[in-house]
Amino acid sequence: MTRANGQRSPCVTLLTDFGTADGYVGALKGVLASLCPGVIIHDITHDVPPGDVLHGAFALATAAPLFPPGTIHLAVVDPGVGTSRRAVAVVTEAGTFVGPDNGLLSLAARPPRRVFVLDRSDVFLESVSSTFHGRDVFAPVAARLAAGWPPDRIGTPAADLMELELPKVARCGGGVEGAVIHCDRFGNLITNLREADLPEAAGEVSVEIAGHRIAGISRTYGDRAPGELLALFGSLGFLEIAVSKGAAAARLGVSRGAAVRVFAGATSRNQA
Amino acid sequence: MTRANGQRSPCVTLLTDFGTADGYVGALKGVLASLCPGVIIHDITHDVPPGDVLHGAFALATAAPLFPPGTIHLAVVDPGVGTSRRAVAVVTEAGTFVGPDNGLLSLAARPPRRVFVLDRSDVFLESVSSTFHGRDVFAPVAARLAAGWPPDRIGTPAADLMELELPKVARCGGGVEGAVIHCDRFGNLITNLREADLPEAAGEVSVEIAGHRIAGISRTYGDRAPGELLALFGSLGFLEIAVSKGAAAARLGVSRGAAVRVFAGATSRNQA
Amino acid sequence: MTRANGQRSPCVTLLTDFGTADGYVGALKGVLASLCPGVIIHDITHDVPPGDVLHGAFALATAAPLFPPGTIHLAVVDPGVGTSRRAVAVVTEAGTFVGPDNGLLSLAARPPRRVFVLDRSDVFLESVSSTFHGRDVFAPVAARLAAGWPPDRIGTPAADLMELELPKVARCGGGVEGAVIHCDRFGNLITNLREADLPEAAGEVSVEIAGHRIAGISRTYGDRAPGELLALFGSLGFLEIAVSKGAAAARLGVSRGAAVRVFAGATSRNQA
Repeated sequence: MTRANGQRSPCVTLLTDFGTADGYVGALKGVLASLCPGVIIHDITHDVPPGDVLHGAFALATAAPLFPPGTIHLAVVDPGVGTSRRAVAVVTEAGTFVGPDNGLLSLAARPPRRVFVLDRSDVFLESVSSTFHGRDVFAPVAARLAAGWPPDRIGTPAADLMELELPKVARCGGGVEGAVIHCDRFGNLITNLREADLPEAAGEVSVEIAGHRIAGISRTYGDRAPGELLALFGSLGFLEIAVSKGAAAARLGVSRGAAVRVFAGATSRNQA
Repeated sequence: MTRANGQRSPCVTLLTDFGTADGYVGALKGVLASLCPGVIIHDITHDVPPGDVLHGAFALATAAPLFPPGTIHLAVVDPGVGTSRRAVAVVTEAGTFVGPDNGLLSLAARPPRRVFVLDRSDVFLESVSSTFHGRDVFAPVAARLAAGWPPDRIGTPAADLMELELPKVARCGGGVEGAVIHCDRFGNLITNLREADLPEAAGEVSVEIAGHRIAGISRTYGDRAPGELLALFGSLGFLEIAVSKGAAAARLGVSRGAAVRVFAGATSRNQA
Repeated sequence: MTRANGQRSPCVTLLTDFGTADGYVGALKGVLASLCPGVIIHDITHDVPPGDVLHGAFALATAAPLFPPGTIHLAVVDPGVGTSRRAVAVVTEAGTFVGPDNGLLSLAARPPRRVFVLDRSDVFLESVSSTFHGRDVFAPVAARLAAGWPPDRIGTPAADLMELELPKVARCGGGVEGAVIHCDRFGNLITNLREADLPEAAGEVSVEIAGHRIAGISRTYGDRAPGELLALFGSLGFLEIAVSKGAAAARLGVSRGAAVRVFAGATSRNQA
């Protein structure tokens, strides 16, 4: 699809915690369609738990890198709306991110990046409410960027972006300890551990979570018999705990924040 | 994005109570894409509680005014499908609305408006089921309108549109009494009270709901300490009851229909 | 909307069991938007219960036939991801279907059809994970097909497609016995019985389910008083059990798999 001037149609993604039962998501889309005619909008998700910035950041980092570089990513998980938190646009080689500066954008907006504080009220809707910056501030800015405005027309360059606080990976007696940072729809438990964090990554390891020990890292969910626990590196490169044909979260009774330890050396078999 | 004839691509919004687990929403989209090639479809919501016309009307009124004037809004919350209720298209300066004439469209389709009864069966799908007018009647009509057909080619002018029944605002001993008409995803309680309804709007007031009294109207959710009740005018101009960083609906144990009273004069502090 | 070369913009539908809280659906959309610029994506559903191939097949068959013939339908309900199940593209007169060969596509992809096994790894993303073929295998293939690649450039012709196993319709003492194969958002119970399966289809029949007997086939949900059970042929041609202004699933306490029997001859009245 090509515009009259030969440019591609602009493409905006949406990620919010607005849910899908109210008209709030539609209001964002209306602003985008009004201020950037012909815009193509792709929903990433609107079911981020209310105010859960970590969940939103993780979902955004899962999806955004797959979009074309010129994409505008509009993300609103904003428990501090109406307070002094900054509103920003972040330009990266992989796309431009618009949202609150509360860590939401930091996982997806990989460096090098240029940060702009959204301080030009003439870009916003005429009457900015104190409760709905998604509609009144962020959507107009995203629409202008999608329409081709340069970022310095919608804000002022800033030095830094607030980084999301992820749990730290710690050494623990011959192994490493991390934590579950995300539990997905399938009950898979995604941790903050990457392959480089593991002891003797090339050899056998055992993974401990909630009193269970898993021997070795599997290549696929189908490597174990149905109902068995397994550990593997998921599509984002993080260590995941899963149950073949099942849900690890329900099976282990754990959720985000649970501790996960990885030690060198395999156990004889999965004791789960 | 420009069509061969120089016109913008048509834009249709969708609002239904079909939910998102079945293929019903997809069927609507298929009809639109088939009868109006190149149509851009924007989902407003499909999670209106089944048959809840008030909820749907409120969500539509939240989102529709933000879209460009030429937008076609297709809304189907239709507990009377297959009975004698009329099917209508309503043309306004802000957009054209297509759906059942049961009050669903009346909050969003602001006067002045022209109403057309959808009585031209040659516009419908060839075989109209008695149970799925969304697919067989409303979507074909919306597609034709999006494709540029004038409204008198898809229906017959009619005099009136069924208005949604909202609770009335009543006077009560020095104050006003309204009701919660919508509870949103964040547990915010939206009432039917507007600023003009309040006593001594310029001065201090106190708001009573479910045995709690809130002093004054806040400007933003962040004006109170986390966990405190507050009242403010939301993005649509209605008085909302909220909890800073919390959910008022769960906190107060109330939902739609709950009484809300506003009196002149502040109390010393929030007694919640 | 017309492309520079005079072709219509490509149209891809999405149906998955990924849910809408994670970034997985967005990742699919990103691949599509990257590999087929200007693609218009229509969500059918992402709320298929995890791994529920029958549910997905039913939703796909509900929606896909309404889309234009050139549409690419990308469907991923894939409990066998990472195992030896085949990945396929199926070309039909009604559209092209891309997904796992586990029965998911077979209800919607009506014969005559040409099947292609997706075995050309140069079409996939460069690094194919063992857990996310939706992003790494299926989306790139759908994107290429939407961009106009002929199907033999993305796979190798194959002879067959795995058919979905539906419960068989059986004769039972003067009548027929089928089963509930789908329970929709409204609590309607959709069976595998079509009009041609019924005894003395032109005359009166009675329908039995969960100890209740329903006299006759209704034309519309509104034919019975609110709260009454009724049976009718739904929009796909299957016999449905419903409750006027209510939810049959909750009322009868049944779900998918429940037996339904239809006998010739009406009973005097609905005994429910």
